[in-house]
Amino acid sequence: MLTINAQRLLDDLADLSRIGETPEGGVNRPAFSPANQEARAWFQAQAEAAGLHFRRDGAGNLSAALPSATPSARTLLCGSHLDSVPHGGRFDGALGVLAALEALRTVKEAGLALPVHLEAISFTDEEGAHLSLLGSRAFTGHLPPAELAHPHSQPGQFAAGLGRAGLTVDSILTAFRDPASLAGFVELHIEQGKRLEEAEAALGVVTSVVGIRSFWLNFRGEAAHAGTCPVGDRQDALRGAAEFILWAQQMVIDRFQPGTMNCGIIRTAPGAFNIVPGRVKLALEFRHASQEHLDAMETTLLGLAHDAAQVHGLRLDITPLGGVEPAQFDEGVVGAIEAAADRLDLSHMRLVSFAGHDAQSLSQVTPAAMIFVPSVNGVSHNPLEHTRDEDVINGANALLHALLILAERTQA
Amino acid sequence: MLTINAQRLLDDLADLSRIGETPEGGVNRPAFSPANQEARAWFQAQAEAAGLHFRRDGAGNLSAALPSATPSARTLLCGSHLDSVPHGGRFDGALGVLAALEALRTVKEAGLALPVHLEAISFTDEEGAHLSLLGSRAFTGHLPPAELAHPHSQPGQFAAGLGRAGLTVDSILTAFRDPASLAGFVELHIEQGKRLEEAEAALGVVTSVVGIRSFWLNFRGEAAHAGTCPVGDRQDALRGAAEFILWAQQMVIDRFQPGTMNCGIIRTAPGAFNIVPGRVKLALEFRHASQEHLDAMETTLLGLAHDAAQVHGLRLDITPLGGVEPAQFDEGVVGAIEAAADRLDLSHMRLVSFAGHDAQSLSQVTPAAMIFVPSVNGVSHNPLEHTRDEDVINGANALLHALLILAERTQA
Repeated sequence: MLTINAQRLLDDLADLSRIGETPEGGVNRPAFSPANQEARAWFQAQAEAAGLHFRRDGAGNLSAALPSATPSARTLLCGSHLDSVPHGGRFDGALGVLAALEALRTVKEAGLALPVHLEAISFTDEEGAHLSLLGSRAFTGHLPPAELAHPHSQPGQFAAGLGRAGLTVDSILTAFRDPASLAGFVELHIEQGKRLEEAEAALGVVTSVVGIRSFWLNFRGEAAHAGTCPVGDRQDALRGAAEFILWAQQMVIDRFQPGTMNCGIIRTAPGAFNIVPGRVKLALEFRHASQEHLDAMETTLLGLAHDAAQVHGLRLDITPLGGVEPAQFDEGVVGAIEAAADRLDLSHMRLVSFAGHDAQSLSQVTPAAMIFVPSVNGVSHNPLEHTRDEDVINGANALLHALLILAERTQA
Repeated sequence: MLTINAQRLLDDLADLSRIGETPEGGVNRPAFSPANQEARAWFQAQAEAAGLHFRRDGAGNLSAALPSATPSARTLLCGSHLDSVPHGGRFDGALGVLAALEALRTVKEAGLALPVHLEAISFTDEEGAHLSLLGSRAFTGHLPPAELAHPHSQPGQFAAGLGRAGLTVDSILTAFRDPASLAGFVELHIEQGKRLEEAEAALGVVTSVVGIRSFWLNFRGEAAHAGTCPVGDRQDALRGAAEFILWAQQMVIDRFQPGTMNCGIIRTAPGAFNIVPGRVKLALEFRHASQEHLDAMETTLLGLAHDAAQVHGLRLDITPLGGVEPAQFDEGVVGAIEAAADRLDLSHMRLVSFAGHDAQSLSQVTPAAMIFVPSVNGVSHNPLEHTRDEDVINGANALLHALLILAERTQA
C-alpha cells in the first residue's frame, strides 16, 4: 500500500520549526511577520525542489500543484496554514501544509495518473493576526470587502504587513477561485484538545466546526487622579471590564457549554500607575457549533457588558469584528476519510471542532472535511503544543489515502 | 503691596499649554517625551530672557536662579515639574514652575535685596513615567540607586529617554545638592480634588502628603486555545487579575478610606483574540497618609492578590517598585504660607495631599510645605483639568509672599 515518506515529512517539520522558533520550543510566525515571510519562502523552495508547480495568489495564498494529465480536470485541494498565533506551537497549521506537500510528492513519485489536479495550499492569516481566515475566505469569495477596513491588528499594521508581502487590499479580492474548478478539500490538523487522547483514537474525523464571533468592547469612564479621587467615586473603566469578564465566563460555564468564550486582549488608557483608567478596550470572542446558541450567546454576553457598564457608571461602545458561522462538513468527504483510516487500520472517531479552520471557508463552496491527530495533553496555541511522530505520520497517510479515494470517485 | 505680573503669568501658561497640547484641551508631556523636551527648552529660554541664571543638573532638573548679594547665602527653592501624565491637564506641575519663575521675575524687577538666593526649579519625572519623583529624589539624595534598574516604563524606554535628554543613569546621582545650602522649599500646585471648591476656600495650606507604594503583579497561568480549552478548565491569568481588581477596590472602600488604590495598567500575553491569557501584568498603586495604615494596606492587598491567584490556579510574582513614605511638612513653612494668605486677604484651610509631590522629597532635607489652589470639579490627570485665572493669580501671589516672609526670617 502506498505510504508517504515518513522521514522526509519529519525532517520538513523540524526544518520549518526552526523558522521563527522561540526559546520555549514553539514558533512565533503571525501573518506577514518576518518569520512568516521566511516560512513562506521556505515552502516555495520545497515545492519547486519537488518539481511541483508553485503559485501565489493575490491574498498571498501559496500553492504547490501536481497537474492531472487531463487539462480540464477539477482541482482536489489539501492544506492548511503556515502562520501561527503569537508565541504559538510548531504543529498548528504547519502540519497540514507539510503533510499536503508530502502527499503530492508521494503521488508524483509513484507516477499515479489521477483524474484531478492535486494542489497543496497554505492559506494566509488563518489565525487572524489581522483578519481570521483571510486567505481562505478571499479564495472562496466569502470575505466581505468591508472587513478589510477593520482588521484586528493595531492601526497601520495590516497595511504595513500587506506591503511587506507585496500585496494590497485590492489584490486580496483577486484570490477568488471559481468553485466549479474545485473537486473538494481535505485539511489535516492537530486536534488542539484532549478528546482523541482520552479515547485513545488515532484519528478524528471532523464533521463540523463551531461558529466564532468577535467584538471589541470599549468601556468608557473618566480618567482621574488615582490619589485624589476616592475609590468609591470613580468611573473606572477597568472595574466595569473586570466585572464583565467574571460575569461572562460564569454565564458561559452555566448556560452555554460546550460553547466557549475568551477575553484575550485588554488595554487601559491613558495607562499609568497614577491615573484611574478612563477607557478600557477588551477583546471578546465566543464560539458554538449551533447557530441558535451562537445567537443566544451574542445577546446574553453583550447584554452583560451593557449591565457591567451601567453598574459602574460607564458608557459602552461595541465594535463587531465579524466572525465565522458554524460549518457542517460534507458527508462524502467525511466518508472518504473514514474509508482511508479503515484501509490504514487506524482507529478513528467523529468530532466537532471548537477551533476555526480554513476548511470552514472551503466547505461553503466545495465538499470539504478535516482529519485531526492527537495533541499531547490537549495543549495548543502554546509553545508546548506537541504531536507525536507516529500521529504525524498516521495523519499524513490518512490524508494521502483520503485524497486517493476522493480522486477515484471524481469525474474529470 | 508687591504682586506678580498676572497677565505675564497667564500668557506663560497659555504658551506652555501649546507644547504637547492634545485635541481634548490637555497636554501630553511625559518625562523625556519630545513634548517634555520642548517644554524644558521653552523654560530655559524664559529664564534666560528674564536675566535669571539657568542651570541644569545631572538628573535633568532645571533651575532659574536669582542670586542674593550675599554669596554665602542659602537657597530658598520654589517650583514643581514640567512633565505631565499621558494625556493629562495643563496645570498639574506647570502652574508651580511658572508661578515660581514669575515670583523670581517680580522680586528681580522690584530690586529687592534678600538674604537668600531664590531658585525656581522644575524637577524631572515627578509623574513617574519612568520613576516617580525621580528628579526631586536625586536632588535630595533619597533615590536608591537600585531603583534606577527598575523603571516603571517598558524595557529600554528609560535608557532611550535619558539618551534623548543627554543624561545617563550615572549622571542622575550627581544631582545631589548639599542640604546645608538650602533654606527651604515652597511648591504651588493645583489641589486635584474638590475640598477647596466645596469649602469655598481660596487657598489650601498643605500640612502632609500621603505615602505611595507601587507594585507590578504578574499573574501566570497557561496560555491555551480559546476554542478547544473549555472555559471552566483554564488557568486564565486575566480571570485572576479581574477578581483581584474587584476584591481590592472593595477592600479599600470598606477598610482603608480615605486611603486609595488604583490599577492603572493591565497587559495580557500572548495577547490575541483566540488565546487564553497565560500571563497578565497589572499595575497596583495605593496611598495613605498614615504609615501604619500604608503597611496594613500592603499586607492586605498583596494577600488578596495571592488569594485571587490561588483560587484560579495561577502563580503570582510581585515586583515592588518602591514608593514614597508619608511626609509631614514643616510648621514654620506652613505658618509662612498662612501669614502670606492673611497678608493677601485670601481665605485658606489646612489640607492633607492625597497626591504625591516633589515637596515630599524636599521635606526630608529642608523645611518645606505646599500651597494648593482649587481645581474646577476636582478634575485632574485629565485633559479637562482646569483652574480659574483668579485662582492661578492668588496662588502665585501667595507663593511670592510666602517666599518673602521665609526670606525675612532667614539668616544668611
